[in-house]
Amino acid sequence: MRASLVVIGTELTRGIIQDKHGMLVSRELTRIGIHMSEIVALPDDGSLERVIEALMHSNDLLIITGGLGPTSDDMTRSVIAQAARTELVFNEEIFSFLVARMGLERASGANKKQAFIPNGFSVIPNPNGTAPGFYGYGDKTLIIALPGPPREMEPMFRGSVIPLLRKKLDIGEEVRDEYSTFLIAEAKLEELCKECDPSLEWGTRFQDYRISLYVSGGDKERRDSAIEKMVALTGKNRIVEGDYEALGLLVSALKERCATIAAAESCTGGLAASLLTSLQGSSEYMMGSVTSYASSVKERVLGVKRETLEGYGAISNECAIEMADGVRRELGSDYAFSITGVAGPDKSEGKDVGTVSIGLSGRDRDSQAVQLLIPSYGRESIRRRASVAAFILMRAFIMGDDASEIISSWRIF
Amino acid sequence: MRASLVVIGTELTRGIIQDKHGMLVSRELTRIGIHMSEIVALPDDGSLERVIEALMHSNDLLIITGGLGPTSDDMTRSVIAQAARTELVFNEEIFSFLVARMGLERASGANKKQAFIPNGFSVIPNPNGTAPGFYGYGDKTLIIALPGPPREMEPMFRGSVIPLLRKKLDIGEEVRDEYSTFLIAEAKLEELCKECDPSLEWGTRFQDYRISLYVSGGDKERRDSAIEKMVALTGKNRIVEGDYEALGLLVSALKERCATIAAAESCTGGLAASLLTSLQGSSEYMMGSVTSYASSVKERVLGVKRETLEGYGAISNECAIEMADGVRRELGSDYAFSITGVAGPDKSEGKDVGTVSIGLSGRDRDSQAVQLLIPSYGRESIRRRASVAAFILMRAFIMGDDASEIISSWRIF
Repeated sequence: MRASLVVIGTELTRGIIQDKHGMLVSRELTRIGIHMSEIVALPDDGSLERVIEALMHSNDLLIITGGLGPTSDDMTRSVIAQAARTELVFNEEIFSFLVARMGLERASGANKKQAFIPNGFSVIPNPNGTAPGFYGYGDKTLIIALPGPPREMEPMFRGSVIPLLRKKLDIGEEVRDEYSTFLIAEAKLEELCKECDPSLEWGTRFQDYRISLYVSGGDKERRDSAIEKMVALTGKNRIVEGDYEALGLLVSALKERCATIAAAESCTGGLAASLLTSLQGSSEYMMGSVTSYASSVKERVLGVKRETLEGYGAISNECAIEMADGVRRELGSDYAFSITGVAGPDKSEGKDVGTVSIGLSGRDRDSQAVQLLIPSYGRESIRRRASVAAFILMRAFIMGDDASEIISSWRIF
Repeated sequence: MRASLVVIGTELTRGIIQDKHGMLVSRELTRIGIHMSEIVALPDDGSLERVIEALMHSNDLLIITGGLGPTSDDMTRSVIAQAARTELVFNEEIFSFLVARMGLERASGANKKQAFIPNGFSVIPNPNGTAPGFYGYGDKTLIIALPGPPREMEPMFRGSVIPLLRKKLDIGEEVRDEYSTFLIAEAKLEELCKECDPSLEWGTRFQDYRISLYVSGGDKERRDSAIEKMVALTGKNRIVEGDYEALGLLVSALKERCATIAAAESCTGGLAASLLTSLQGSSEYMMGSVTSYASSVKERVLGVKRETLEGYGAISNECAIEMADGVRRELGSDYAFSITGVAGPDKSEGKDVGTVSIGLSGRDRDSQAVQLLIPSYGRESIRRRASVAAFILMRAFIMGDDASEIISSWRIF
């Protein structure tokens, strides 16, 4: 099956906004084995008329987004009717929907146009806007029309179009497992997928503080065994089932225990605290933090001993423990962690860029500290990854696990 | 002049990467008055051959990116030669460039292909890769071919293609003034542009902590008078000439004075500190910070008086001054600011979401505090805008200005 996507919008061809549909549609169609032959962006001046015949000729499926609004330059519906050699007909179902949504008066005005679709075409409901989509055949090509705004188009595409295509292609309901991975570079993750089971279908999605991993194909046992292999290759607490952030997992552990937290940060400079306070209601668990960037602040505010700074340096497990203990004591929290390391671009105290010590302190446990070497993809990336590592280890510590044992299982990429 | 862009790459039609050229090319061509009639993404399987004739027929300019590499599926150059009814010829200039870049052996291998361009076409040098671009005429259409990777394509497009087109269109060197604006929503900024002088050409570019503003057309006097109007409508220190971040302006003021800084944060929760330490070499001026999220931390670590917290509340100028003074004293810095406010989504202490007090403290000056009401576009947006406001006011304070006077001129959108 060959498909093309036409995205209509003068904002696109004037460079005012960035198209989002191209990537979504081509990724999802590729996943179900449909070959994308072309993605075309056009202004909404009726240009569609010029290209639709050629596209129908060379494709089995044509998805068209945009140009379904009530204004006069929205002419997608009439161009499609013409290409399908039919006329636009009034659709009662859509009109009732419009009346329910905006009242009889407005539905009978400019918006009435939206109740017309090509004769013989079926409606695709739009839960988030006034313009419904529709689909039907023009010659032998399946034509699907959807509204342009992403918040309307995306749910319709995922919720209606993909199931429709799966049915037409006779593909059953997809079974897909989702995982969240931490501290693994995306390119490395893709490599690991192939290494663990090249016969399964893998997908990844990069987000700032985690990468989502999707696996489908095979049976559940096969998929689980591939993930087990991957866990063995990457280490403990790096891959979790479901859609989670390391931050969210830590916050859940705190909330379950009604426990409070504090942080002492050096190389991350406030980033970990900023993340801990980014969630609504964070005052429930967050006491505060100290960014002890200068050594004098480590001493004066956190009570790190001068001998520790002079004997081991600021980037050491010894300093990390005293920072974590100090901030917990000064701020009066149940738990605390510290992060001290080299964000780069230059070495510091003779330590390589990416060297990070993390200290962990709790009211009822002996403090711990571990050191890791984060591969450098730049200063901001090291700061982000150091924060994620601290969240993972703090949570493990709260749950009674041993940080050194976890770290010793890690291979960091 | 009508133009189309063809972006070649199977990663695009399989949804693996997001196209970036479409927006860049259409924005920049629109700016010089060229009408984009189509943006097409194609896989690199030779599909270009299928569409190039029709595109040449309906366009005066055809820009094609991608498919110029040394591998066998990179066939852009041969398809263009064919469409221009000519053959590929060996180009000495490119070959010497390849030899200089990768040595004679590699240049004579698979890469040698890259030294061939259509007969009669001219070379567009590529400072960042092995594949040069080229341009020439096929029938009456100007065809420009560029490599696909953005870090190669973009500098070539801006540095060579745009000047070439400006020359062909007989448009002189563009005169465009650039400004950086702070704490003005993009939609509001666009409105203000029209209000200040609708006859000038305005452009905006959103970045996380500022919005760039470009103005061209008219003469210098006219543009300056429009900007003066805009400054009058928005207030002091909100619009500066050039490409600056509020953070960078503050850091420059500190560095010029070899002064150090500290911060006390409540609602921003470490964000301002995280930004202050995001720049390489920040240990030169940054002592550290305290995130005093809980009231107890404001008291214990920063020394805010209980009477202040009980009498005025944590979100007050009184508390902000004590926080700024406290963190400066505890951390021993030359200057310090504080941020305490309501990031939302709910009111706090009876204060509206977006209410933020900023305190300013310095070794040689009386402390100051001001309160502002930031319109809410969400929790993260308030935190960002509060940080930017603190950077602007801290810098003004360091330069001897009066924060209340500045704030009283602000209309915040």
